[in-house]
Amino acid sequence: MSQKKEKKGLKIVTIGGGSSYTPELIEGFIKRIKELPVTEIWLVDIEEGREKLEIVGNLAKRMVKKAGIDCEVHLTLDRRKAIKDADFVTTQFRVGQLAARIKDERIPFENGLLGQETNGAGGMFKAFRTIPVILDIVSDIKELAPNAWLINFTNPAGIVTQAVLNYTDFDKIVGLCNIPVHTQMDCASLYEKDVTEFRFQFAGLNHFVWYRVWDKNGNELTADLWEKRQDKKNLGVKNIVSINYDYDQIKDLGMLPCDYHRYYYLQDEMLKEGLKSFKEKGTRGEIVKKVEEELFELYKDENLAEKPKQLEQRGGAYYSDAACELISAIYNDKGIIMAVNTRNKGAVSDLPYDAAVEISSYITADGPIPITFGKFPNAGQRGYIQLMKAMEELVVKAAVTGNYYTALQAFATNPLVPGTTVGRKVLNELLDAHEKYLPQFRDYYENREKYRK
Amino acid sequence: MSQKKEKKGLKIVTIGGGSSYTPELIEGFIKRIKELPVTEIWLVDIEEGREKLEIVGNLAKRMVKKAGIDCEVHLTLDRRKAIKDADFVTTQFRVGQLAARIKDERIPFENGLLGQETNGAGGMFKAFRTIPVILDIVSDIKELAPNAWLINFTNPAGIVTQAVLNYTDFDKIVGLCNIPVHTQMDCASLYEKDVTEFRFQFAGLNHFVWYRVWDKNGNELTADLWEKRQDKKNLGVKNIVSINYDYDQIKDLGMLPCDYHRYYYLQDEMLKEGLKSFKEKGTRGEIVKKVEEELFELYKDENLAEKPKQLEQRGGAYYSDAACELISAIYNDKGIIMAVNTRNKGAVSDLPYDAAVEISSYITADGPIPITFGKFPNAGQRGYIQLMKAMEELVVKAAVTGNYYTALQAFATNPLVPGTTVGRKVLNELLDAHEKYLPQFRDYYENREKYRK
Amino acid sequence: MSQKKEKKGLKIVTIGGGSSYTPELIEGFIKRIKELPVTEIWLVDIEEGREKLEIVGNLAKRMVKKAGIDCEVHLTLDRRKAIKDADFVTTQFRVGQLAARIKDERIPFENGLLGQETNGAGGMFKAFRTIPVILDIVSDIKELAPNAWLINFTNPAGIVTQAVLNYTDFDKIVGLCNIPVHTQMDCASLYEKDVTEFRFQFAGLNHFVWYRVWDKNGNELTADLWEKRQDKKNLGVKNIVSINYDYDQIKDLGMLPCDYHRYYYLQDEMLKEGLKSFKEKGTRGEIVKKVEEELFELYKDENLAEKPKQLEQRGGAYYSDAACELISAIYNDKGIIMAVNTRNKGAVSDLPYDAAVEISSYITADGPIPITFGKFPNAGQRGYIQLMKAMEELVVKAAVTGNYYTALQAFATNPLVPGTTVGRKVLNELLDAHEKYLPQFRDYYENREKYRK
Amino acid sequence: MSQKKEKKGLKIVTIGGGSSYTPELIEGFIKRIKELPVTEIWLVDIEEGREKLEIVGNLAKRMVKKAGIDCEVHLTLDRRKAIKDADFVTTQFRVGQLAARIKDERIPFENGLLGQETNGAGGMFKAFRTIPVILDIVSDIKELAPNAWLINFTNPAGIVTQAVLNYTDFDKIVGLCNIPVHTQMDCASLYEKDVTEFRFQFAGLNHFVWYRVWDKNGNELTADLWEKRQDKKNLGVKNIVSINYDYDQIKDLGMLPCDYHRYYYLQDEMLKEGLKSFKEKGTRGEIVKKVEEELFELYKDENLAEKPKQLEQRGGAYYSDAACELISAIYNDKGIIMAVNTRNKGAVSDLPYDAAVEISSYITADGPIPITFGKFPNAGQRGYIQLMKAMEELVVKAAVTGNYYTALQAFATNPLVPGTTVGRKVLNELLDAHEKYLPQFRDYYENREKYRK
Repeated sequence: MSQKKEKKGLKIVTIGGGSSYTPELIEGFIKRIKELPVTEIWLVDIEEGREKLEIVGNLAKRMVKKAGIDCEVHLTLDRRKAIKDADFVTTQFRVGQLAARIKDERIPFENGLLGQETNGAGGMFKAFRTIPVILDIVSDIKELAPNAWLINFTNPAGIVTQAVLNYTDFDKIVGLCNIPVHTQMDCASLYEKDVTEFRFQFAGLNHFVWYRVWDKNGNELTADLWEKRQDKKNLGVKNIVSINYDYDQIKDLGMLPCDYHRYYYLQDEMLKEGLKSFKEKGTRGEIVKKVEEELFELYKDENLAEKPKQLEQRGGAYYSDAACELISAIYNDKGIIMAVNTRNKGAVSDLPYDAAVEISSYITADGPIPITFGKFPNAGQRGYIQLMKAMEELVVKAAVTGNYYTALQAFATNPLVPGTTVGRKVLNELLDAHEKYLPQFRDYYENREKYRK
Repeated sequence: MSQKKEKKGLKIVTIGGGSSYTPELIEGFIKRIKELPVTEIWLVDIEEGREKLEIVGNLAKRMVKKAGIDCEVHLTLDRRKAIKDADFVTTQFRVGQLAARIKDERIPFENGLLGQETNGAGGMFKAFRTIPVILDIVSDIKELAPNAWLINFTNPAGIVTQAVLNYTDFDKIVGLCNIPVHTQMDCASLYEKDVTEFRFQFAGLNHFVWYRVWDKNGNELTADLWEKRQDKKNLGVKNIVSINYDYDQIKDLGMLPCDYHRYYYLQDEMLKEGLKSFKEKGTRGEIVKKVEEELFELYKDENLAEKPKQLEQRGGAYYSDAACELISAIYNDKGIIMAVNTRNKGAVSDLPYDAAVEISSYITADGPIPITFGKFPNAGQRGYIQLMKAMEELVVKAAVTGNYYTALQAFATNPLVPGTTVGRKVLNELLDAHEKYLPQFRDYYENREKYRK
Repeated sequence: MSQKKEKKGLKIVTIGGGSSYTPELIEGFIKRIKELPVTEIWLVDIEEGREKLEIVGNLAKRMVKKAGIDCEVHLTLDRRKAIKDADFVTTQFRVGQLAARIKDERIPFENGLLGQETNGAGGMFKAFRTIPVILDIVSDIKELAPNAWLINFTNPAGIVTQAVLNYTDFDKIVGLCNIPVHTQMDCASLYEKDVTEFRFQFAGLNHFVWYRVWDKNGNELTADLWEKRQDKKNLGVKNIVSINYDYDQIKDLGMLPCDYHRYYYLQDEMLKEGLKSFKEKGTRGEIVKKVEEELFELYKDENLAEKPKQLEQRGGAYYSDAACELISAIYNDKGIIMAVNTRNKGAVSDLPYDAAVEISSYITADGPIPITFGKFPNAGQRGYIQLMKAMEELVVKAAVTGNYYTALQAFATNPLVPGTTVGRKVLNELLDAHEKYLPQFRDYYENREKYRK
Repeated sequence: MSQKKEKKGLKIVTIGGGSSYTPELIEGFIKRIKELPVTEIWLVDIEEGREKLEIVGNLAKRMVKKAGIDCEVHLTLDRRKAIKDADFVTTQFRVGQLAARIKDERIPFENGLLGQETNGAGGMFKAFRTIPVILDIVSDIKELAPNAWLINFTNPAGIVTQAVLNYTDFDKIVGLCNIPVHTQMDCASLYEKDVTEFRFQFAGLNHFVWYRVWDKNGNELTADLWEKRQDKKNLGVKNIVSINYDYDQIKDLGMLPCDYHRYYYLQDEMLKEGLKSFKEKGTRGEIVKKVEEELFELYKDENLAEKPKQLEQRGGAYYSDAACELISAIYNDKGIIMAVNTRNKGAVSDLPYDAAVEISSYITADGPIPITFGKFPNAGQRGYIQLMKAMEELVVKAAVTGNYYTALQAFATNPLVPGTTVGRKVLNELLDAHEKYLPQFRDYYENREKYRK
């Protein structure tokens, strides 16, 4: 039994602290300092990220200093020291850095498949690399800071959350994504009203979530919003090509999709567009790499002591602010609704009880409680999401066990992999490319000929 | 498709407006007038209740006048006229008045069974009498005020809600009970803190609900509260004898029971105590009748223009205030948590999807959304509540169809009826006693010899 | 309540009696005449099939005569007269004849999609045409022969069964496919043993069914059989290209797939192969047309009085014999196990209670009872089959309601349709091509411009 | 992975071999010797049963010798030696012998509760004593005879099966009861037909099972059989008082109950009758003790070489023959239907997936497969059986863990225990009475004062 929790100055630990997003996180804490008494921020990174950690860490220190708040920023490569007695641990690391992402995107594209960071073959490999590290972190937290909450926004955030929920006895994880925040902001801007004038209900999986929306008088606006969204190219996250959904098909679903559903409902067009872009401009990872280098140049400026505007152009805007809001909601037992990744427990009837789902949840000091969603209104949603969850389970199992055949099965089940022949080829090429970061697949590396037949 | 809902002055209709509880309701509206602009209150009753309606209705008028608010109180026997264009309809009627309750209690006791208003044989008959009337009211609302919400606190509130959810296509019903409010107040008083310092999670059925409690730092207090509640005889609703539960058995359950669980977990003691009290003092209905007569004497006083203190001594205290709070929460899309009776939709995994459950719900302008509870922590709760829900379904089906055999099956399934021999005898005697109010059981009345073998 | 069933001479009705398969059916009855006293066989067809009905019907008469059994063969275009007092009705008709099938295959192929009779776009349209006719037949049976069993082997047999189970109150339908029979025969031939030396357990959907196998000592042979099946090109039904599955992926599944899973697990290869064959040889329907014409030439031979060997070369071999066996099993309360399409009722935990499933069932005089399968051993199977069932539900709903948007949703959900852009184009072209046979889609035909945006 | 199973001479082990039922078992093997080549029968007992083992064992030897079959009968107190390489292990032992049963019956009766061998307080204690021993036996089987099947007919057979299914990874257990056999025989005798002329479907829990029945033409006879059973006092097992059920209530259920449902549906009458009989004649256990002593006197007769007629007067008639039939059905992969206790796996929708259920099952060489039952037709059945299963889970958990509070919860949940006050008293008295056989409740015995408050 862990000791009784009490209110006090908070120690926050950010793993992957050298990320370019860190300034948004720092800004988020600064602006909430009255309701959320953060006294220590520990930015943790690994040796390969030391330089970036120092650049962004020093910016963080300048930001805190300028804000005049009573908070110390620590930079460290010693994860265990950082975690010790933490109140909240956030994770925003990328195993293998952008170089690994570029491979995740390039190899599928070279084989005629979609190459994308969190979907299809690349998304599954991001999970394979990330999950063992998250499980290590959870192990540290259980030992060194058993009362801490783990706020994960390392992608694929839903699959990572599922891994922790299904392969550890640690329940205090919340997975967070910026898609629901984006969606709400888009809605508010289309109606030219404040976001608080709406009530949203999200239900689904991370990057595969649907939603409905109501006004404050209880009138449902979902169909009206769908009408309003047509031909508004500037909506949605920046990293997804904004091809229009089939208006009627979505309307028939009775709920609106997130940006990522395009990869499935517009599969051939998104693939064609992706292949074209890949040939012309290379991978998204390569583009992001340049943006990041520019950001770090900015961050080096010793006169800079606030989050630069340019950061908002990154695909992940709002992520860090949402994390700060979630931390505050837990700390203050706020009872607000946020869409997070958490254990289903029956909230979405069409998915397993212990599945991680992305769902509008009531945030308490004891964590998020999903508000009950029930059954999907349309068999189309139900079938597709059940397939996606099955695929996620296989990905998690392969990531944890390193079983090659389970990984192959995950590929066979992923709707963006059109068959096992090309699927197995891509699987093998990605395994070969990421050997350094996939120690659990040792048997594959030691017996390649056995697996490559 | 109903018209778009907008904010405006509200018309409230109270069916069973001649109830002695009405002053609490009026007080509830008066004190919320700034957030809840009630401009019309229609108190409706039937011919048999005309006198009480006038007495309490005139008190209501005096209360409103004294408060100086812009609201008209109407008294009427014309239910349809009252319902026309209503915003909220509340129901607090008692079919057959207290005379019927007294029979519900007396006849079981005379046969050696528990005689109680909402549990056992009596509770089932209260449902048989009430459900046809509620279904009529729903039919009127659908025709005359399709945007209105029906707030039912006529007992058995859960079973009545189930009838509407399962036998009509009307979804805008919320069943309300004062037990959760009482429970929260008791907790606050034991800790000598404000009730807002706690977070409660209720899950179960009306009069068969369990709960857990946390402080604002996320520490669970359930076991501690159980310790604190020991030997505090003044807790709980006034109408239930306060015999102590087995401390260890409840602790093992992992959630705390409501007052009514005593009839089940302490079955023989409660029966013995009930029979003793019946012999010495007659039925609870007879006692209440006297209390009510005294209240109405008070209400007649033309100088009285507020809710008299004595009303709080009735078992149903807090009911009406909870109703006003619920109405305000819906009207204002408050997003607060209240324990209400609503459709399960998977919130309580151990109960059917379409069952009415009593559960902590997030209250929106579109009605309550249960917060997800999941599975009960203990097989003991699960098994018992599944039996209770099955019994409730049989009661609803018998009430709607008037099928004698279904009623007999409900008796055979009710844990407070120890077998079909005595059960059938009591069933027949109650049917005979309530003939006037049970038109749906026509076949029984026309063919008694067939059913009485 | 229907009258009591008793043993007597049986009246069998075959709708689509002009089919080239009829001789196998007749042979099946002849060889079982001692256990199954068929005294009347009514072959029913429509005006367009009159010539074929007469040719094959006369062959049937010669076969029966040669066998010397006491059974009359009737040929008729009057379906209701035939159904009157029938004991078993079998259905093997094809709405729109082979010309419609050819369109189902050609149009998808012309748009770069798989063109196949029972899968993908073509399979969905076969359902759209067939379901309204089946519902009419069920309506006739309920009126004219309420004790009769409907044995459906019109494809897509599973979806057609689902339509009857979900949109009528008629329960006495069994859907039948030759795939499980084929599978069992293939196994027996690989082991060079009699088929009775094995016990099979099938579970899934029609044309999407998996199986395991045991010997009579209870040793599971599934993995061993998988090993044995490798590189045996002559296995499986004749109408599916026999590309090898990924050996390891299937082994990991823990159950063996049917031939049709290739369209999903080997999606790109099967599509490539299909397109190649289409370009070189035209559609499968066109090939079958020639085979049929040759068969009917044979059937015309007045000296022919038995099923010609050539019939076994058709893809549907064993179908009719399986139907006779099923009829005998019901009539004789045999208690044998057959894989049929019937209501799930929980037998396959991962599919809805009321879904039609293809499952090993215990055959009684009261129909098939699925033997309990439980959960699929692998998430890969679970997810895929849940998607397929959702798609089937949408197909049935679109077929019954004629709702264009539901049809579009079915296309969006079908894994063989790679997105809504091409999907909607193919949907429209197929609707246009089949106008004569799709009266339920009236609104589309009257308002094409509305739907074609 | 266990070795491959093959047909060969069989070694049968019977634990509790000194039971008076053993001659029926031996007879069962003798009459099936052609289909079931039993070559070794090992009768195992403990020191306390040595004398009975020798008496009945010698009778068994004489029976085998007289039959002239090639089979050796071994008598031993060495359980592990017996189990080594066994093919089938049957269990019919009684922990604490009849003396323990007498306490299970006497103590509840003395406290005004039903005292019965397998129901209520006594039944729960029989489970507490038996389960640890069964788990030991399973452990031995896994080590010494991993291919063996365990056929358990030690009561409470369903709860014991549940313990093995939920607390070990051993799946090869089948629980067997004579109630379904009895029921089928009663039906056949009422219709004066052979039992093979009927098809039965049983579903429920051991000693809480319902059934339906059909003739060979598929006509359901359930209601007709219920009519026929009225006032036939000589039906049912011998050990249950044959008070008539309420005819109408059972008819409304849509399925017929077993004899044991009387304890629940006729609770007060059965209790009254039980208390009367207890006062007049003592416990059932005491009566059985005398019957057994008489049987053993018979068995001693060296001229006796067959099962004596008098054995059929014992309540457990048909048990052993059913066991032989089950063993033969498994050995021969018979594919017959028998009602056994096995894992639910969704067969009964209203019960948990992993629950032990008593259900008509298809018997294969790989064990029983439940035939799918679906949902109970009546909420009355559903609710009651869900309560019973919850109670069984608590009993199993208490038996395995020795947790006093779990045992108390089981008592609180058992419908035959009317409340925790008397329940706890009886629990304590039974714990005290059975100390010798309940080592798992060590903490209670060492800290009685703590538990007795």
